[in-house]
Amino acid sequence: MTERLSDTARGTLLPPLLEAGWTVSDDGKTLSKTFEFEDFPNAFGFMTRAAIYAEKWDHHPDWTNTWNKVAVTLTTHDVGGLSALDAKLARKMDQLI
Amino acid sequence: MTERLSDTARGTLLPPLLEAGWTVSDDGKTLSKTFEFEDFPNAFGFMTRAAIYAEKWDHHPDWTNTWNKVAVTLTTHDVGGLSALDAKLARKMDQLI
Repeated sequence: MTERLSDTARGTLLPPLLEAGWTVSDDGKTLSKTFEFEDFPNAFGFMTRAAIYAEKWDHHPDWTNTWNKVAVTLTTHDVGGLSALDAKLARKMDQLI
Repeated sequence: MTERLSDTARGTLLPPLLEAGWTVSDDGKTLSKTFEFEDFPNAFGFMTRAAIYAEKWDHHPDWTNTWNKVAVTLTTHDVGGLSALDAKLARKMDQLI
């Protein structure tokens, strides 16, 4: 079951993501990061790799692509905030660049 | 050479796109449309097909994907408005859904 992250879980899962360039929104409900690539094929290649995991885990980002940039926002609508799935997908995205 | 669309060209190229659901921004500089699909794989599949033409024509959309939706904005930064490339990519996208 997907659950909203407890304060304890946030304290464990979020600091490494913040260190990797993710930011948490003021209301604490979303994680965001803008990835920058050499060009469009690299940016879209990243999206394609991430899309496969998003569908596999049934957890999809809100994301915007403008040529070499991909701006990602993660949240778990079902729980009205961040869940472990957001942290998992964020970590995976960092591995896929 | 890419040139900004003349009024005459706009009168020819834009009406069929407006009929197909595209909208022109108030300042006349961008074309936008939101495509809706059955699910994420279909939405991302559309993006993948469109990405190939975007790169082939060296003309890339600004686009946002949220699960089954893809919101596209087209403009030609080099000319500060719409060019024939925007109309061409818009028509292609309509063929790729």
